[in-house]
Amino acid sequence: MGAAMAGNLLRAGHELTVYNRSRAKSETLAKDGARVADSPAEACHGAEAVLTMLADDLAVEQVVFGESGIAGALAKGAAHISCSTISAALSRRLTSEHAARGHGYLSAPVFGRPEAAEGKKLLVVMAGPNDLVERFRPLGDAMGRQTYHVGSAPWQANAVKLCGNFMILSMVESLGESFATMRKAGIAPQMFLEIMNALFASPVYANYGKIMANEEFEPAAFELKLGLKDARLVLAIAEECGSPMPAASVVHNHLVSAMAHGQEKQDLASVARVHARNAGL
Amino acid sequence: MGAAMAGNLLRAGHELTVYNRSRAKSETLAKDGARVADSPAEACHGAEAVLTMLADDLAVEQVVFGESGIAGALAKGAAHISCSTISAALSRRLTSEHAARGHGYLSAPVFGRPEAAEGKKLLVVMAGPNDLVERFRPLGDAMGRQTYHVGSAPWQANAVKLCGNFMILSMVESLGESFATMRKAGIAPQMFLEIMNALFASPVYANYGKIMANEEFEPAAFELKLGLKDARLVLAIAEECGSPMPAASVVHNHLVSAMAHGQEKQDLASVARVHARNAGL
Amino acid sequence: MGAAMAGNLLRAGHELTVYNRSRAKSETLAKDGARVADSPAEACHGAEAVLTMLADDLAVEQVVFGESGIAGALAKGAAHISCSTISAALSRRLTSEHAARGHGYLSAPVFGRPEAAEGKKLLVVMAGPNDLVERFRPLGDAMGRQTYHVGSAPWQANAVKLCGNFMILSMVESLGESFATMRKAGIAPQMFLEIMNALFASPVYANYGKIMANEEFEPAAFELKLGLKDARLVLAIAEECGSPMPAASVVHNHLVSAMAHGQEKQDLASVARVHARNAGL
Amino acid sequence: MGAAMAGNLLRAGHELTVYNRSRAKSETLAKDGARVADSPAEACHGAEAVLTMLADDLAVEQVVFGESGIAGALAKGAAHISCSTISAALSRRLTSEHAARGHGYLSAPVFGRPEAAEGKKLLVVMAGPNDLVERFRPLGDAMGRQTYHVGSAPWQANAVKLCGNFMILSMVESLGESFATMRKAGIAPQMFLEIMNALFASPVYANYGKIMANEEFEPAAFELKLGLKDARLVLAIAEECGSPMPAASVVHNHLVSAMAHGQEKQDLASVARVHARNAGL
Repeated sequence: MGAAMAGNLLRAGHELTVYNRSRAKSETLAKDGARVADSPAEACHGAEAVLTMLADDLAVEQVVFGESGIAGALAKGAAHISCSTISAALSRRLTSEHAARGHGYLSAPVFGRPEAAEGKKLLVVMAGPNDLVERFRPLGDAMGRQTYHVGSAPWQANAVKLCGNFMILSMVESLGESFATMRKAGIAPQMFLEIMNALFASPVYANYGKIMANEEFEPAAFELKLGLKDARLVLAIAEECGSPMPAASVVHNHLVSAMAHGQEKQDLASVARVHARNAGL
Repeated sequence: MGAAMAGNLLRAGHELTVYNRSRAKSETLAKDGARVADSPAEACHGAEAVLTMLADDLAVEQVVFGESGIAGALAKGAAHISCSTISAALSRRLTSEHAARGHGYLSAPVFGRPEAAEGKKLLVVMAGPNDLVERFRPLGDAMGRQTYHVGSAPWQANAVKLCGNFMILSMVESLGESFATMRKAGIAPQMFLEIMNALFASPVYANYGKIMANEEFEPAAFELKLGLKDARLVLAIAEECGSPMPAASVVHNHLVSAMAHGQEKQDLASVARVHARNAGL
Repeated sequence: MGAAMAGNLLRAGHELTVYNRSRAKSETLAKDGARVADSPAEACHGAEAVLTMLADDLAVEQVVFGESGIAGALAKGAAHISCSTISAALSRRLTSEHAARGHGYLSAPVFGRPEAAEGKKLLVVMAGPNDLVERFRPLGDAMGRQTYHVGSAPWQANAVKLCGNFMILSMVESLGESFATMRKAGIAPQMFLEIMNALFASPVYANYGKIMANEEFEPAAFELKLGLKDARLVLAIAEECGSPMPAASVVHNHLVSAMAHGQEKQDLASVARVHARNAGL
Repeated sequence: MGAAMAGNLLRAGHELTVYNRSRAKSETLAKDGARVADSPAEACHGAEAVLTMLADDLAVEQVVFGESGIAGALAKGAAHISCSTISAALSRRLTSEHAARGHGYLSAPVFGRPEAAEGKKLLVVMAGPNDLVERFRPLGDAMGRQTYHVGSAPWQANAVKLCGNFMILSMVESLGESFATMRKAGIAPQMFLEIMNALFASPVYANYGKIMANEEFEPAAFELKLGLKDARLVLAIAEECGSPMPAASVVHNHLVSAMAHGQEKQDLASVARVHARNAGL
């Protein structure tokens, strides 16, 4: 994901230094003109902005506040742009910690799978102060088909990203519940899926539905444990904002059950196995 | 809805007698060649099949078992094809009651709004014995873009229809929950909707989302109380089949709350008002 | 249950004719002075009031409206007092059908197990018109330790009974969820139960908890399928009254899952097996 | 709460140094023979064990790891016994941080209100290594009517405490849902409560039900925001242990809604206002 985004930044003419824990991944980008750094700190040298694209809160905390991290290396006046799907709480912490060091901070999580990143088809959701967003919007435009400025507080972009991910989780949940009921009703999931595809023409239903119908949960296109992370984070934001989201609770509980059955590395679609078990299948 | 379907049957060359409680609605079809009957029974005279397209279980029960109803008038060997969104329980009752009278019975509920019916774009979900389905499939084909045969027991078509409607209910639910959270997070619903439309390109999100964002809940494109009917029926089928559907329970409870606030004639999208109230908005 | 209640009516000096599908059960009461009837209709002969204590809506419908039923045999001015746990909808139907025949109708469901019925410890929840309740309150007092008049419409007593049963269902649900979590946390259910008994001193937790901890789900003290009936009826009343009850939905969904795993004749406490399965146990 | 527990320790003959942010509260105990310290560190001087009874995770973190905190002051071989209702996660952190400093660590949360603490009626739930529990069990016995050793890992005691609190939350939830339905059914909450008290004889229903029926939510006996903390922590433990707890999710969502309506300082019983609003009351 990060490599695809970096490639598009290079193609748009930006100077780029890249860092990855596995240096091999960086080398590919070197061929396209990127400098390769040996630490996050080194990647910050002389940079106007540093972008992070990482798995979760913990990874971001380590890269920013850990040894040879961004916090101690970024120049005053430079900015950190976080593209990861992280909690609103961490986004707020990054906002204040960077401010205390004279850094700018933007949240810019993205919608889209790795293929969309390759094809510059991402949706980039930016939040932060106007001046910073205007200054760095070209980076978003270089990586995606559209850049949105959703608010002046960086965490707001994380809220949008998490609610968007919740929409997907909810679609997968309702598909899985329906599949279980269809099977108990003696109707082939493939038949139901064919009708749903004709009705909705939605890639989300088509993709996850195909995995469910074929019960091909590995290798995962999107790991179930990442779906659980999203469900947990959206519920956290719901509590922080004072807006109950019971449909998110339903998904969360089912993903916890899936984890308890050892499905963490299976595809998110395998939540359908939880529904199937609940139906005695 | 029924008028549009009847029009397509006429255009496909079928002889048709129509009945509606309000005779004026039937007259329009008379211009296109339909005979007009004064009762369901009269509409059955000499008919090979009678199609019903009605609001709910009660309406179907009255038209079939009531005075001058279908049950007493349909010829032996003729069939009743029920296109309404009704309970699986009523579908099973119709199956046995018609069988006892020497009638065939097919369930053939449809997916699609009135515009889709006009444009012969409906999806027709048929269930019943093979021979009956083969005999009457041309009627489905005349009314829609695709006819599916999902099972040999008529109620199975109702199960498919109800699960499909649940998918829509679930999309509306998750959109409404997200809208409430976005508003509490200080993000304009219009902005969130714009991003979701770019992400999903789904007419369901686009249509219901627009109504939610503009808070234009009347007149209703699809009345909330019909959504509640669907939620209730899908939960009934879930219980009958032994397949719990907690996401459907969430929607159902929110629609009950909406009814308690007098929203029965508002658009289904107004369930977002429940989420807003729960969030203190 | 019915026999114990009848015994207390006899002991209070009331003249009683009893009917049970299995005549042997009636004979025992004959020794205590009851006449034995061969049909519900015969039991109504010359009676001022007829009490019914039956399993569910269907049984009540058959005994009242079926062949040799109460509806056709009860004298004008006499009353039907229904003690069964039935739906509010049936209670409303009984109210109007009896009124049309010149009968009175009272709902008088009871709280308490068979032992409580034996010991005249039942709580009798009556609803109906004041004059009827005053006239028949002595029957309630003869059967229980307290008679409550909760409203002038008979279905209100059913609403109270169902909400009371929901309270029990909810206690069993939370106990089962906690047991699963405790087991996953490496804590013996017996230990947790001992602490909960010390904390709450509640017979509900003690009884159901013991069954759960010992996993002795058969024979059932209270069959799971009866719990499902209660959950379904309380959700029906919640919808009718316009008062969402999501905790009841949670229980209902888990009981549906239990049914799908063949637990209908196991004790209600076996819903803990659903929680255990969800936790991968 | 802490003062009552300290009083019982003194009465049992233990030497005690006490610390409270508000020194006045400590002075009362001084009359009973306690030394008064000016910081948590000072309270640790020469102590074999230090007990903490604090509001939440944050307070415990400050008192242990903050300036003049316990972590830096406790002698090697001495132990920290945490009686607060805190997260299992913090309990695990305390376990490892204390171990690294050569301290013992026990979790010993308690069940019971301040009156129970006064009367030495608490239930003390201890978890930790056998030798530590045997060494310090007399402290538990001095403060309560029973000390339970539930496991060798300290966080297990927190799991038990949180599940116990969830049981109470769940009772309050079902009572509130029932009250709303009763009100919509035209039945006085007081009447329903009277029957429930006769049925269950439970102080939990009696206490919370009285507050609900009288709608006297302030001053709070137990603040709603503390209930939300408990619900959040029990859901966290459910996820960590891999045991979904959907009934806890229902309570959590309703408490979030209550917070959104400004009820944080009202009594937990005021969650009934959420149910009432959902029912259009």
